[in-house]
Amino acid sequence: MLDSYLRNVKTKKPVIHCITNYVTANDCANILLASGALPAMADSPLEAAEFTEKADGLCLNLGTLSEDKKKAMLLAGKKANEIGIPVTLDPVGVGTSEFRSKTAGELLKEIKIAVIRGNASEIKSLLKKDTLGRGVDAESSDEDRLETLEEKVDIAKELSKNTGAVVVMTGEADVVTDGVKTYVAHNGIPELTKVTGAGCMLSSVVAAFAAANKNDLLTSALAAVCTFGYAGEIAKDKLNEDEGNISLRNYLIDAIYLMTPENLEKGAKYEDR
Amino acid sequence: MLDSYLRNVKTKKPVIHCITNYVTANDCANILLASGALPAMADSPLEAAEFTEKADGLCLNLGTLSEDKKKAMLLAGKKANEIGIPVTLDPVGVGTSEFRSKTAGELLKEIKIAVIRGNASEIKSLLKKDTLGRGVDAESSDEDRLETLEEKVDIAKELSKNTGAVVVMTGEADVVTDGVKTYVAHNGIPELTKVTGAGCMLSSVVAAFAAANKNDLLTSALAAVCTFGYAGEIAKDKLNEDEGNISLRNYLIDAIYLMTPENLEKGAKYEDR
Amino acid sequence: MLDSYLRNVKTKKPVIHCITNYVTANDCANILLASGALPAMADSPLEAAEFTEKADGLCLNLGTLSEDKKKAMLLAGKKANEIGIPVTLDPVGVGTSEFRSKTAGELLKEIKIAVIRGNASEIKSLLKKDTLGRGVDAESSDEDRLETLEEKVDIAKELSKNTGAVVVMTGEADVVTDGVKTYVAHNGIPELTKVTGAGCMLSSVVAAFAAANKNDLLTSALAAVCTFGYAGEIAKDKLNEDEGNISLRNYLIDAIYLMTPENLEKGAKYEDR
Repeated sequence: MLDSYLRNVKTKKPVIHCITNYVTANDCANILLASGALPAMADSPLEAAEFTEKADGLCLNLGTLSEDKKKAMLLAGKKANEIGIPVTLDPVGVGTSEFRSKTAGELLKEIKIAVIRGNASEIKSLLKKDTLGRGVDAESSDEDRLETLEEKVDIAKELSKNTGAVVVMTGEADVVTDGVKTYVAHNGIPELTKVTGAGCMLSSVVAAFAAANKNDLLTSALAAVCTFGYAGEIAKDKLNEDEGNISLRNYLIDAIYLMTPENLEKGAKYEDR
Repeated sequence: MLDSYLRNVKTKKPVIHCITNYVTANDCANILLASGALPAMADSPLEAAEFTEKADGLCLNLGTLSEDKKKAMLLAGKKANEIGIPVTLDPVGVGTSEFRSKTAGELLKEIKIAVIRGNASEIKSLLKKDTLGRGVDAESSDEDRLETLEEKVDIAKELSKNTGAVVVMTGEADVVTDGVKTYVAHNGIPELTKVTGAGCMLSSVVAAFAAANKNDLLTSALAAVCTFGYAGEIAKDKLNEDEGNISLRNYLIDAIYLMTPENLEKGAKYEDR
Repeated sequence: MLDSYLRNVKTKKPVIHCITNYVTANDCANILLASGALPAMADSPLEAAEFTEKADGLCLNLGTLSEDKKKAMLLAGKKANEIGIPVTLDPVGVGTSEFRSKTAGELLKEIKIAVIRGNASEIKSLLKKDTLGRGVDAESSDEDRLETLEEKVDIAKELSKNTGAVVVMTGEADVVTDGVKTYVAHNGIPELTKVTGAGCMLSSVVAAFAAANKNDLLTSALAAVCTFGYAGEIAKDKLNEDEGNISLRNYLIDAIYLMTPENLEKGAKYEDR
């Protein structure tokens, strides 16, 4: 079922405008190219909307946030809504600062978000106005264990209902829901918490799949999550004993580059919930 | 003929001040080091001119442009002109936004540019005030096919005459011209469109060659283009079937690192036009 | 003696808040993860202090400095002092511009710095208000040879006494001193001057070791320097003849990832001075 979603990315080659952090921007651009999409990165309020206007999807990532980036996100997000292209939000580190939490709140209020991709702590923070976060990569593991899968599904569904967005909550298992229908995906490897920007990269891929499959955002998000997670598994298989997290990052992006719709179909592991 | 140009980079070790985008800055710094040059990156108007003052060349790249970067470029560019070091301009994504097009226009008006390096869409946009671009990496392939090689040469020559700069228009074949004499270089591989910042990296290398060979900007630009393109060919030869665009990027920079003047002389493919 | 210092990083997993440059931020984040620490990067004055508040260590890096980053550093540094977590300063390129030198001076005046990590030119510049620098990566080699090891030790000790910080002056041999006790470390390889951000990465690792061993900053800095230098040696051993500086960077970070306390103990080379 998922193969056609990846095929669409490869044939439509959607241009994804990313307003994103400088820590992982290079990896995000390369993983977009690997998937078949075309990155365009511009984060000044002076030009963000014009870049969005020529794009097929928009990806907003709250890492290394600044006042200017926030303004650019609001302008670009409104333009995306106006021209009908999907907006993906990665609420990196939300809950760690008031500025980040308020920005996330404003974006959710002012812009129709198509897909939200975060870890359990970030998703909870968006929902509960909690401030549980300890930073960025920092959050991925700790908070994760606080919840049973059932609780996670409930929280993701609640955020989806509140926002109208497809919600992707990543962790040991990945929850993908539109508030009514829910998938749990089981691809992926824990070692990706040792690669900076794994979450950012996944969100970029989610944005590419959404742009190329905008009539079915739920399944497109599931396909993106399985593509990324399965690429992680392939990367881990290639990793030798004398290699570490940079090799894993390199193998991951290469595996996205080489992923075929047929391989994805075979390797994807998910269930209805 | 080209070997001495690379030799000069390796022996003179020019310091290249880059005001550049954050997406590809790391790769640009590493490819400069690989070529034998020394990168220095500072983009605040509060200090850009002082960095230029201590450098041997300046590279201005319009990616992730901001108001502050623009101010820094103008200050640094004027300082470069004042002290007589060559300025290389990479008009990334020009034509995609009014801000970027206006900034490019202002730079060309206020600063004597030594070399301009862009793809067909960017070069045309500088000339015709067209807005054909769809973004950044996005542009490399599509626009390219709109022109015959003859048309490309004409456009590059026209921009060169209008600006006094050596113009490098990259694509399937690379055009290098000073408006009078023109070379067409045939090194390179199409797969580099799958590596983010391939154009930015090439422009950095062009800036290094210009700084180390400032009395012959035309041939230095040709040498840079052949060095980069031939390194791409070497990278592709090393690429295994189970490797993708990140491996290609890594092999590319490594190949620049290992390129000797003698190898360049043997591998360079170009013709007078 | 040094094994327990690395072990503490791996077991305590300190969160390191980095206010750093965009050129090397990705490598710094990945090398922190490789060492066992957790990076958090946020550089807006609107949220920097809140990120510091939830961190175990702060790393301030002057690369690609801006007015906003400077404000963020002052706010974050004061917060770090208030809550008692160690602040590491990497005075990248200090001496190259007045803005950078003044910022370094202000940081040293307003904030209690735990560890300063720089090359000979940067350390001298902090001490003598000299402006010897030619940029960033540019500085590593040239200035280095101007001093005998004895002179270097004297300069490092003087800066340590003036600031109360442990000073790490890297070069052919690395000097680590608290003004009273001094170590000279002999791990490392000269080829790292060909990898952009080698200094930035080392400073990140120094910050991680300081955060996990805050009651013994001197030995923690020595342990960080030996870990990094020994990882460089391992990386060089792995480097094939057909590989260059990007492979070296990749092997370096992987070697940090794989470094065990036992290996460090065996590989560390240092002497009392």
